[in-house]
Amino acid sequence: MGNHAILLMYCQDKSGIVAAVSDFISVNNGNIIDLDQHVDHEEKIFFMRVKFSLEGFNIPQEKIKDYFKTLIAEKWEMKWRIYFSDYVPKIALFVSKMSHCLLDILSRWQSGEWKVEIPLIISNHENLRFLAEKFDIPYHCFPITKENKAAQEAKEIALLQEHGIDCIILARYMQVVTADFISHYPNKIINIHHSSLPAFPGAKPYHSAYGRGVKIIGATSHYVTQDLDAGPIIHQDIVKITHRDSVKDLIRKGRDLEKLVLSSAIFHHLERKVLAYNNKTIVFN
Amino acid sequence: MGNHAILLMYCQDKSGIVAAVSDFISVNNGNIIDLDQHVDHEEKIFFMRVKFSLEGFNIPQEKIKDYFKTLIAEKWEMKWRIYFSDYVPKIALFVSKMSHCLLDILSRWQSGEWKVEIPLIISNHENLRFLAEKFDIPYHCFPITKENKAAQEAKEIALLQEHGIDCIILARYMQVVTADFISHYPNKIINIHHSSLPAFPGAKPYHSAYGRGVKIIGATSHYVTQDLDAGPIIHQDIVKITHRDSVKDLIRKGRDLEKLVLSSAIFHHLERKVLAYNNKTIVFN
Amino acid sequence: MGNHAILLMYCQDKSGIVAAVSDFISVNNGNIIDLDQHVDHEEKIFFMRVKFSLEGFNIPQEKIKDYFKTLIAEKWEMKWRIYFSDYVPKIALFVSKMSHCLLDILSRWQSGEWKVEIPLIISNHENLRFLAEKFDIPYHCFPITKENKAAQEAKEIALLQEHGIDCIILARYMQVVTADFISHYPNKIINIHHSSLPAFPGAKPYHSAYGRGVKIIGATSHYVTQDLDAGPIIHQDIVKITHRDSVKDLIRKGRDLEKLVLSSAIFHHLERKVLAYNNKTIVFN
Amino acid sequence: MGNHAILLMYCQDKSGIVAAVSDFISVNNGNIIDLDQHVDHEEKIFFMRVKFSLEGFNIPQEKIKDYFKTLIAEKWEMKWRIYFSDYVPKIALFVSKMSHCLLDILSRWQSGEWKVEIPLIISNHENLRFLAEKFDIPYHCFPITKENKAAQEAKEIALLQEHGIDCIILARYMQVVTADFISHYPNKIINIHHSSLPAFPGAKPYHSAYGRGVKIIGATSHYVTQDLDAGPIIHQDIVKITHRDSVKDLIRKGRDLEKLVLSSAIFHHLERKVLAYNNKTIVFN
Repeated sequence: MGNHAILLMYCQDKSGIVAAVSDFISVNNGNIIDLDQHVDHEEKIFFMRVKFSLEGFNIPQEKIKDYFKTLIAEKWEMKWRIYFSDYVPKIALFVSKMSHCLLDILSRWQSGEWKVEIPLIISNHENLRFLAEKFDIPYHCFPITKENKAAQEAKEIALLQEHGIDCIILARYMQVVTADFISHYPNKIINIHHSSLPAFPGAKPYHSAYGRGVKIIGATSHYVTQDLDAGPIIHQDIVKITHRDSVKDLIRKGRDLEKLVLSSAIFHHLERKVLAYNNKTIVFN
Repeated sequence: MGNHAILLMYCQDKSGIVAAVSDFISVNNGNIIDLDQHVDHEEKIFFMRVKFSLEGFNIPQEKIKDYFKTLIAEKWEMKWRIYFSDYVPKIALFVSKMSHCLLDILSRWQSGEWKVEIPLIISNHENLRFLAEKFDIPYHCFPITKENKAAQEAKEIALLQEHGIDCIILARYMQVVTADFISHYPNKIINIHHSSLPAFPGAKPYHSAYGRGVKIIGATSHYVTQDLDAGPIIHQDIVKITHRDSVKDLIRKGRDLEKLVLSSAIFHHLERKVLAYNNKTIVFN
Repeated sequence: MGNHAILLMYCQDKSGIVAAVSDFISVNNGNIIDLDQHVDHEEKIFFMRVKFSLEGFNIPQEKIKDYFKTLIAEKWEMKWRIYFSDYVPKIALFVSKMSHCLLDILSRWQSGEWKVEIPLIISNHENLRFLAEKFDIPYHCFPITKENKAAQEAKEIALLQEHGIDCIILARYMQVVTADFISHYPNKIINIHHSSLPAFPGAKPYHSAYGRGVKIIGATSHYVTQDLDAGPIIHQDIVKITHRDSVKDLIRKGRDLEKLVLSSAIFHHLERKVLAYNNKTIVFN
Repeated sequence: MGNHAILLMYCQDKSGIVAAVSDFISVNNGNIIDLDQHVDHEEKIFFMRVKFSLEGFNIPQEKIKDYFKTLIAEKWEMKWRIYFSDYVPKIALFVSKMSHCLLDILSRWQSGEWKVEIPLIISNHENLRFLAEKFDIPYHCFPITKENKAAQEAKEIALLQEHGIDCIILARYMQVVTADFISHYPNKIINIHHSSLPAFPGAKPYHSAYGRGVKIIGATSHYVTQDLDAGPIIHQDIVKITHRDSVKDLIRKGRDLEKLVLSSAIFHHLERKVLAYNNKTIVFN
C-alpha cells in the first residue's frame, strides 16, 4: 500500500460532517480506504477516523494540514490531527526490573511487526541493561529517590526531546511519574496496570485479588494522567483463575496478560486508531 | 429515538461513494446517526451501512427508496436495501425437541429486548407445543419423512407467506431443509450448528469433538444455503473443555453456547447489521 | 449412574488425610468416582471433595454420616458434609422486575438440565407473576418498605422453612436482605451482581462502568453475607465492550452475562462442588 | 518448596487405587502436596497425578522408583513415571524463519519463569541464528531437501541424544518430521499448529480461514504423531476476528495466539501435568 493520510477528529455533532470531509477528499482526487465514525449521543460529540490514499491526491502532502484547517476544520470547529503513513513514530520504553513486557515489545519491533523506532530505553534500575544491549538500543539509567525525582525527570525529558520521542511506554515501570512530566506528553504516555481497573488500583493488585478471592484477574492499558491509575482506558482483558492459583500463579498468568494488553494498546495508538476524550477513549477498530 | 432509515449496500469500490451517499442525506436534511463502511481490497468491493434520522427529512418515507434508486444507486450500480425502524420484522421459529434455544428467543421477545413479532412456531415434533402454548404462539407440527418432505415444506412455505414472515430461525431444528425451500428465503434462514465450523460438520459434532480430544467446543450461526453447514457464517463462539468433560458435559456446556450464538446472530440480523456476500458476511458492529 | 455420596470437607493440613478417607471408602467396598483436593499452603488448610458409589457399599446409607463422623471426621477434626445423589434439592427464587435470570433458571429446570425442585418464587413486585404462572410455580409477593422489611422477611422465612428450602437464589432481586435473614441460610443464598466485583459494588454498576470508560463489563455470583457485595465469590465472567456501547447496550450485553454467571454458580452449588472458607470459595471443577 | 516427586500413572479402573498410592506415601512419611485423578468411564481407565514432598521421606530418592514399581505399580498393572523436581529438563527448539514463538520461549527461559535448559536450537534456515546468538544458545542449521531429509534427521537425532534432550519444541518449524524421527521421542515432541484443529489442517490455515469467512481463528498445541496434525491435543485457544481482518491481520493476531498456546503446552508438559492416552491428553490443571 502506498502513502496515505489518517485524519482523527472530533467536534460538536451536526448534520453534514461526513459529507463535508468525504467531499474534501474525493473532490481532490483522494480515495477513502477506511472511514469510521462515532457519535456520543449523551455529549453530542462527533468522532471520526478517515484513512485516505495520497496517490494522485491534488493537494501536496506538506500542504494538506493547512488546506484542511482552512477549508474544513475551522468551519466545523474541529479538534483534529492528520498523520502520514510514511512517518515512522519514535517510542521510548520505560522499564524497571521485569522483562516480559519489554521483550514482547522488542520482539514485535525486531520482527518488523511494528513500523516504529525505539531510540532509547529508560530505567530506574540497571537490571535490564543486558537486554537493551542484546538489541543494540541505548539504555539510560536514572535511579529515582524522593529527593532527586524532579531533577532526574528533567534529564529524562531533555533526553526524550532530543530524540524527538512521540510516545512513551511504561512497560512495567514501577515509578509514579509527576504531573509535570505528564504535561509534556498528554495522551502520549501509555501505562499497563496489572488489574481490571477500577478494581485494585495502586500497588500489589495480584495480592489484593488473591485476598479477595476473585475468579478473574485483569490488566488495563491506559493513558497516564495526574490521577494515578485513573487515566483513559485503551484496552483491557482478563484471564480466569481458580482456587488452585497462588499469588505466584497470578503473577505468572498476569505476565502474559500484561504483555498482550500493553502491546495491543501500543499497536492501536501507533495505527492512529485511538482518540482520547473526556477521560475515555474511542478505539476505532 | 424517532423513526430512522437503515441503508445496507455494496458495489464496486470507487472514489466518492461515501461523499455521494452522505451528501444525499445531508442535502435532504437527514442526519447520519451511524455510518460504517468496509472495503474488501481483494475483491475491490465497497460495503456500507448508514443509519440516518428521518426527522425533518425532506423526502417522504414512502418515496425514499425510489429517490435513492434514481439519484444514487443506479449511478453507482449498487446492490442495496433500505429498512425503516418503524417496521416490526416477523420471524418464524423452527424447532424439534430441544427447548433451550427456543426459550432463550422467547425470553428476549417476551421481555421486549427484541422488537419483533413471532407469528408462529413450526416443528416436526409435538414435544415443544406446551411451551408455545405458554407464550400463546400458534404451533404447527409438520412431521417429516423422506416421502412427504416436499409436500410438508410446501405447506410450511404457504403458511410462512400467509403470515408475511421476513426471517426463519432454525432453533435446533434437526432437519435438513431442501434447496427449494431455501430459494424462497435467500440469506433469510438462520441456523445454529453446534460446532466451530468448518470443524465437525454434519451430525453429532459433540461426539466427534469428544472423540478427537479437542480442548474447545464451538457453535456457529450461519445463513442456510444449499451446501449443508457451509453457508455464510454470522457469528461463532467457543467454550473451553477439559478431559473431565464427558459427551454429556459437552452437550450441557454447548447448550449455553448455542443459545447465545444463535441469539447474537438474530439480533444483528434484526438490527440490519449483516450483509452477506460471496459466502461470507460483513457484520457491522 | 446409581446412587452415590459426595463428601465435602476441610481440616488442618496433615499427612495421611487422603489415605484415611480413601481407605474408609475402599475398605467398605465403595468406589471413588471422583476425588479432588486442594491445600491452601498459606492457611495450611486441606480441602477435599470425594464422590463415591454406594452400590455394594457396606455401610447403609442412613448410617454413613454417623460412621464417617466417628471413624474419620472427629479424629481429623474435620468440618464436613455428606450429600446423597438421590436427594433432590429445593431452591427458592427471589426476583424483582427483570425476567432474564428467572427464565434462564426455569428453562434449565423445565428441561431437566437441573435435578432440582422449585417450590416457590418470592418477589417484592407483581411483575413476574405471569411467568411463574406459566410454569405453575406458586408466586408470593412481599412488597418491601423500610418499615415493614423485618416483618415481611419473617413471613418469607416462615414460608421458606415450611417448604424445606435448601438454597435461595437472588435472581436480580433488587433488595438488600438483612443480617437476620442471612443468618438462617449461611452460604446458602446466591446472588448475582452485575459487575466484576470488587469493581463497581452497589447500585447502577453499568452506569458507573460507562462513566469510567472501561472496555470490559463483568458479572459476579457470590454467597450473600452481611457485607453488601462482599461475600465469597463463586463465579465471574466478563464481556468486552467498546466506545460504541451505550449504557443501554451494557445492560443488554450484561443480561446474558448475568444469567450465565448466576446459573453456573447454581449448577456448581447443586453439584456440591463449592466450599466456602474464609470469605473465598473452593470450586472443585 | 523443597525437593518433591511427581507420579503420573494410569491403569484399569479398580476400587482402592487412591488408597493404595496415598497409603504408600503417608506410611513412608511423605506428604501429598497435590493429588488429581480422573476416570475415563467409557474406557474404564484410571489416571492420577500425585505430587508429594520428599522431605523426611523414608525411601531414598534413588530407590523410590524401584520400591514403587515392586510394591504398587506391578500389583495394579500401572503405566507410570516418577519425576523429581530437582531435575532440570532439557529442551531443544526447532525453528524456521518466524521469531515470535522462539522469542516468547526464550523470554520465559531467560527470566527464570521456566526452570529448563535449552542446550540448542535447530533450524532448516539461517534466519534466526542472530537471535540464538543474542541469547548465547548454540544454533545448528540443517537445510532439508527431499533427498537429504533422512540423513539430516539422523544428524539431528545424534545431536539431540548427545545433549540428553528430554523434549523437542517445534516452534513454527515449517517441516514435517518423519515417522522414524518421531519414534525416538514419543509424546515428547510438541508442535504448534495455527488453527483450531481439526479445522484447517495442513498448510496455510489462515488463508483457508479467511476464505471460509470464519469469525474465530485458533491455535492448537499437540504431541507430534505420524498422522500430520492429528496427534493428541494439549491446548487450544482462539481469538475473534471480523470482516475487517485481512489474511495479514489473521497472521498478526494469530502470532500472539500461537506463542501463548505453545508456551502453555510446554509449561504443562514441564510441570508433568500432561498424560497422553489413546490419542487424547489428560491435562491435570
